[in-house]
Amino acid sequence: MKNQEFLNKAERLFPKLNKVTVYPVRTVRPENADGKYVAVETGSYTEEKLSTGDSVVLDFGDHETGFFTAHFGSAGAHPDAPVWIRVRFAERLSEFFEDAAEYKGWISKAWIQETQAHLDILPCEISFPRRYAFRYVKIEVLDCSSRFKLTVEDASATAVSSADDSSILTYSCKDPEMEPLDRIAARTLHECMQTVFEDGPKRDRRLWMGDLRLEALTNYETYQANGLVKEGLYLFAGDTDDDGRVASNLFIEPSIEADDVYMFDYSLFFTTTLRDYYVNTKDKETLLELYETAIKQVELSEERLGADGVVKDSDMMGWCFVDWNLGLNKQASAHGIYLYALLAAADLASYMGEKEKEDEYRKRHVSGVQAVRKALYDPEKGVFVSGSSRQISFASQCWLILGKALSDKEGRSALESVESLSDAEGMVTPYMYHHYIQALIDVGLEDKAKDVMKEYWGGMVSDGADTFFELYRPGHPNESPYGGTIVNSYCHAWSCAPAYFIRKYEW
Amino acid sequence: MKNQEFLNKAERLFPKLNKVTVYPVRTVRPENADGKYVAVETGSYTEEKLSTGDSVVLDFGDHETGFFTAHFGSAGAHPDAPVWIRVRFAERLSEFFEDAAEYKGWISKAWIQETQAHLDILPCEISFPRRYAFRYVKIEVLDCSSRFKLTVEDASATAVSSADDSSILTYSCKDPEMEPLDRIAARTLHECMQTVFEDGPKRDRRLWMGDLRLEALTNYETYQANGLVKEGLYLFAGDTDDDGRVASNLFIEPSIEADDVYMFDYSLFFTTTLRDYYVNTKDKETLLELYETAIKQVELSEERLGADGVVKDSDMMGWCFVDWNLGLNKQASAHGIYLYALLAAADLASYMGEKEKEDEYRKRHVSGVQAVRKALYDPEKGVFVSGSSRQISFASQCWLILGKALSDKEGRSALESVESLSDAEGMVTPYMYHHYIQALIDVGLEDKAKDVMKEYWGGMVSDGADTFFELYRPGHPNESPYGGTIVNSYCHAWSCAPAYFIRKYEW
Repeated sequence: MKNQEFLNKAERLFPKLNKVTVYPVRTVRPENADGKYVAVETGSYTEEKLSTGDSVVLDFGDHETGFFTAHFGSAGAHPDAPVWIRVRFAERLSEFFEDAAEYKGWISKAWIQETQAHLDILPCEISFPRRYAFRYVKIEVLDCSSRFKLTVEDASATAVSSADDSSILTYSCKDPEMEPLDRIAARTLHECMQTVFEDGPKRDRRLWMGDLRLEALTNYETYQANGLVKEGLYLFAGDTDDDGRVASNLFIEPSIEADDVYMFDYSLFFTTTLRDYYVNTKDKETLLELYETAIKQVELSEERLGADGVVKDSDMMGWCFVDWNLGLNKQASAHGIYLYALLAAADLASYMGEKEKEDEYRKRHVSGVQAVRKALYDPEKGVFVSGSSRQISFASQCWLILGKALSDKEGRSALESVESLSDAEGMVTPYMYHHYIQALIDVGLEDKAKDVMKEYWGGMVSDGADTFFELYRPGHPNESPYGGTIVNSYCHAWSCAPAYFIRKYEW
Repeated sequence: MKNQEFLNKAERLFPKLNKVTVYPVRTVRPENADGKYVAVETGSYTEEKLSTGDSVVLDFGDHETGFFTAHFGSAGAHPDAPVWIRVRFAERLSEFFEDAAEYKGWISKAWIQETQAHLDILPCEISFPRRYAFRYVKIEVLDCSSRFKLTVEDASATAVSSADDSSILTYSCKDPEMEPLDRIAARTLHECMQTVFEDGPKRDRRLWMGDLRLEALTNYETYQANGLVKEGLYLFAGDTDDDGRVASNLFIEPSIEADDVYMFDYSLFFTTTLRDYYVNTKDKETLLELYETAIKQVELSEERLGADGVVKDSDMMGWCFVDWNLGLNKQASAHGIYLYALLAAADLASYMGEKEKEDEYRKRHVSGVQAVRKALYDPEKGVFVSGSSRQISFASQCWLILGKALSDKEGRSALESVESLSDAEGMVTPYMYHHYIQALIDVGLEDKAKDVMKEYWGGMVSDGADTFFELYRPGHPNESPYGGTIVNSYCHAWSCAPAYFIRKYEW
């Protein structure tokens, strides 16, 4: 159900992309030292004379999102045949040690960032047409006639982002250990700020509701590109299903189109994201226009409540996202998110001056809390369980804390308990860790929250991260929900949490 | 040694390329029926919905040289990932049964006509940037998300040639069996007529002197694009080596540059090609300007004469081309070509009114004939032998007949003898067969010449040729001097002989 007025408004908010020409800072030889990937600096790529099988790896020094251009020449006799090259783009060095042909996962191989070109006439300049996300670029000669050699005379990239680096709020971390986390998180967000808040510039480059929510939160503390949040809200409100349900994600090209995938939690995040937007901007006009859509998500979510007043579980993969942990039961988390959204709905009603509505949502929140405590709380263990198998997980505790189903003391106890249970389902994404950090803060465990952040996001930094990853599970470098790490995204906006927490809580 | 005036003149003669939009005439499924390749017509490619691993093969109905464009769409859910495709271009169906990865030959794999593309946004139109030579185009889906399918909504090619089809001389073959040979030969020439007379539009697209000579001969009988011959002559004369030697071939892009490969026979063909050009055009101005270069080639060739007055043999691969038969000894053929060029030099001197020079060349021709008869003629067998191993070949007889070293009767006897000798070195290219046909005609065996043409070029027609091949050896379909048939060219101008002989001798 398209609301053309909303979509037009969103399109008018599409930002101008800033284009910056960037150059390789050095030429490297990637090495695998017992699973640790190292870039050994070599002589400049411009000095190399390449034959069949040779390659050069350019290091741009930081994560870039953009378009690659190279100028090729030759050495030796006049070129008597085209040169066939492959160009691979990698966010991390480890990607060069993965074989694209080996990838047999369930999402498209087309996401693998490589291309081929035939250089018919030398010298020539090639501007590769696709946008890539990379720090490293490897140029490999698949075949070159033996009469001459290929040279790469210069290379550059036009990096694109709608983030304006000069507008980022300055912030000095109180704890110097937090500085790299803040900087890398801001860079992660920067790279994802394109025409929309993309989830990741490598893959799949879409506007996802759950990602938008977290990007918006970090954005308020950093770039304050609030028009981009507003644009995202109007886009989601502008293409709902016939019932008015907000989609989990939207395609922007060739035209704006909601994906036909709906997720319980992502629809509800429209409500909470509008609340956060209003809190940060006091933009009453947008509140007035999008309020109905926000309220609608809560109403629709209640269709999923069972006779016991608790969100019904489902076997359908992806009915509710929560985390990329495929073994996770989502019922308790979903109920927590429902409660969390009810509170946001009550806030929105209060901003609208609708006292009666506000009271109604707060009443429903109280009932929802009572229902879930009755159905899923195990007072003995002090934790929430989820689903008919009564699974215990970090996610369930976190979301029911964020949904205010536990007192702070109960919350602390739940988080401590789940940590002590070796069979509790863990977390695999920075996205879920964001909620864990927030839950720790909410129950008064701010020091623990800092420690978790330093350990988890700091682990990525130790692994050489220039931007934070889509997935990270310490000790499990081969983790991928897609059937192969070669399609994982290593710059994913849902992992930009550090810049939010560090600045918001003045760490 | 560049003569900029000549090169400028050549560049001013560069023809306009005619562009014609062509469309697939049908969609086919290539099949290998016991080594015979068959195109089974299927439903239209526009009806296909393609998943990973699927492909369509478009048949353009004739050989085309040009640029391919396709418009892609999707069916099913909104595309949620790019589509990765490979596009292969084939002059002949058999090429689809060859595996590019298996090719390990000595010339570059970059000649293999295939490319890949990532379709980020659908629908989209892609105009592939390289020029290809093809009748068939195969579009294969390397990966497509399971949520949708790829469609090819339309496809076309912009065919390019500087040949003007409306200007071809009409000719009705006396012998109806000759008609397809004439038509296919003219198409072959048409496809090679680009900015220069290319050797082949697939590979290596250069102006070669030996090929120019035969293309010019067929051109006079068909398209009469005499400016293109003149252009070629000025290009060769415009970039000789420091001694004034004409190169075997020239690169046109990025700028005109003679290759540093010189071949005894190819340099001498400058002399004979200028003679043919003058005979056909009576263009005195060009004769006057290029006469010195033509004469120079003969003078330079005489540096190779031994004390016995015969061209010295060499072990150096490619010192003299003659044919792609790698076992062929070239000495006798080279001497025949020297004699043939001497006669052309005498003709040129006579057109210039230089009687004394003419007499001198004719005298040298007589000496050259005496020398070779003494050194290499085996009167018992009635054939010329070649090299220290006294090899007997078709090529030696043909070229010494064309060089007038034998009487017609001796020539007939030599050709009959060589045919009866099972160990005589044969011929592998239509280029060498051209000279065989001419030799048969020259010694009065015109009927035999017609039979050879029907059998040899007719054999390619039976093999489904739309244009005549670079190499053809009946019964040896896997013949390639390059180490793999996948880089062979199946539209090669040196095989356009039929249109020359049929029209010139009114067959």
